[in-house]
Amino acid sequence: MAQTPEPQLDELTRLMREFTHARDWAQFQDPKSLVLALVGEVGELAELFQWIPADGAVAHFADPARRARAGEEIADVLLYLLRLADVLGIDVMDAARAKQAAARERFPVDQVRGAAPEKA
Amino acid sequence: MAQTPEPQLDELTRLMREFTHARDWAQFQDPKSLVLALVGEVGELAELFQWIPADGAVAHFADPARRARAGEEIADVLLYLLRLADVLGIDVMDAARAKQAAARERFPVDQVRGAAPEKA
Amino acid sequence: MAQTPEPQLDELTRLMREFTHARDWAQFQDPKSLVLALVGEVGELAELFQWIPADGAVAHFADPARRARAGEEIADVLLYLLRLADVLGIDVMDAARAKQAAARERFPVDQVRGAAPEKA
Amino acid sequence: MAQTPEPQLDELTRLMREFTHARDWAQFQDPKSLVLALVGEVGELAELFQWIPADGAVAHFADPARRARAGEEIADVLLYLLRLADVLGIDVMDAARAKQAAARERFPVDQVRGAAPEKA
Repeated sequence: MAQTPEPQLDELTRLMREFTHARDWAQFQDPKSLVLALVGEVGELAELFQWIPADGAVAHFADPARRARAGEEIADVLLYLLRLADVLGIDVMDAARAKQAAARERFPVDQVRGAAPEKA
Repeated sequence: MAQTPEPQLDELTRLMREFTHARDWAQFQDPKSLVLALVGEVGELAELFQWIPADGAVAHFADPARRARAGEEIADVLLYLLRLADVLGIDVMDAARAKQAAARERFPVDQVRGAAPEKA
Repeated sequence: MAQTPEPQLDELTRLMREFTHARDWAQFQDPKSLVLALVGEVGELAELFQWIPADGAVAHFADPARRARAGEEIADVLLYLLRLADVLGIDVMDAARAKQAAARERFPVDQVRGAAPEKA
Repeated sequence: MAQTPEPQLDELTRLMREFTHARDWAQFQDPKSLVLALVGEVGELAELFQWIPADGAVAHFADPARRARAGEEIADVLLYLLRLADVLGIDVMDAARAKQAAARERFPVDQVRGAAPEKA
C-alpha cells in the first residue's frame, strides 16, 4: 500500500527542528534571533547579484556552479524562514496559499496588466 | 486510483508563475528586482519583531491576529523566494535538503552541543 | 569669535539620543532591536527600487517627489545606524575613514580597474 | 585664517566617489545594485548579533575586537548608503534633519512616553 509522502515544508521544518534540538540550540533561537539570521542569509543572497547587470542575471546564473551557489543561499533563507514559522506555530503552507489568493484579488488582471505597481 | 498530490513547493511556484504571467509582470521580475522585493518583505517581517522583548516574542505572537500577521509576512518572503528560484531554474527542495545535510556535517553534535557559533 | 560647528554625525547622533530619552524608549533599543529596525527601513528603501528598470532608476528619482521619498528612507536607515553605533559606543566617522582606507588598499587601482569583483 | 573643515558626510561621500571613479566602477553602481550591496552589508551586521542574548549585546560588544568588527560593518553600511545618496543627488544631512524633526512631531512626548509603537 502506497504511503502518502511527507509534505515538503513539513519535511524541511522537521529536519531543522531535529538539527536544532540535537545541538541544544533552541535556547538561541528566539524569534528575533531567527529574523536576524534570516537577514544574514538574505544579505549573502543579495551579494551574489549586486554587481551583475540586471538584464544578464539569468544568463549569469545559468552557469552550473553559480546556480548551485544561488541555490545554497536560497536554501539558507528558506530553512531559517521555516524555523521561524515553526517557533511561532505558523502553518506556512496555509499562510502562503491565503496570501497568494489575496494577491490575486488585490491586483485584478484587467486593471494591472503590464503595469508595475509603484510604491510611494 | 489515488493521484499523487502536487508537491507543496511546486504548487506555490506554479501559483506565483501563473499570477505573474496573467498580469504580464515577468518583464519586471528579473532576479535583482526579485531580490529587492524579497528584501522589502523581510523588512516588513523585521518590523513586527523590532520592539518586542526577545524573551516575550513567542507569547506575543501566540495572539491569533498577530500570528496571522506574522504568517502573512513569512508567506510574502516565501513567495518571492520561490519566484526567484523559478526564474533562476533552481530546484529549491533539492537545494534545501542538500544544505541541511551539509549543516549536519559542518556542525557535529558532539563538538557544538549547547554552544552558539560566533561570527567574527 | 567663530565657533566650530558640531560635526554632522555628532549632531544626528545627539538628536536621536535626545529623541529616544525624551520618550523613555532606550529600554526598547537594545542592539538587536535596533538592527531589526534598521532592516525594516532598508526594506522600505528597497521597495522604492524593486520594479524600476535598472538603467532608468537615476532618471526615475530625478523627479523631486520621488527623490524626497528616497531621501526619507535613506535618512531612516542612517538615523537607526547612528543610534546603533551610539548604543555600542562606536565612533562611526573613525570607523568609516578606516574602512574606506582599507578598501583602497584591498582593491589596488591597477589590478581591479573596470572589473566588478565577483562574490563566490 | 582658520578654514572651515569639510563636513563629515561630504568627506565620506567624496572618498567613496573618488574610490569608485579611480577604479572605473561607476558603471556597476546603478541605484539597484547599490541597494543590493547595502543589503549585503546589513546582512553581515545582522550576523554579528544573531545569537547573542538580547540583554547581553552591549556587554558583548564592549570587547574591543568585537566593537571594532561591529564598527567595520556599520561603516560599510554607511559608505554604501552615502554612495547611493550621491548617485541619486540626495542631500543626506538635510534629509536626516528633516526626518528627525518629523519624528518628533509624529510621536509627541506626552502621548508615547514609555510605550513602544506596535507595527500591525
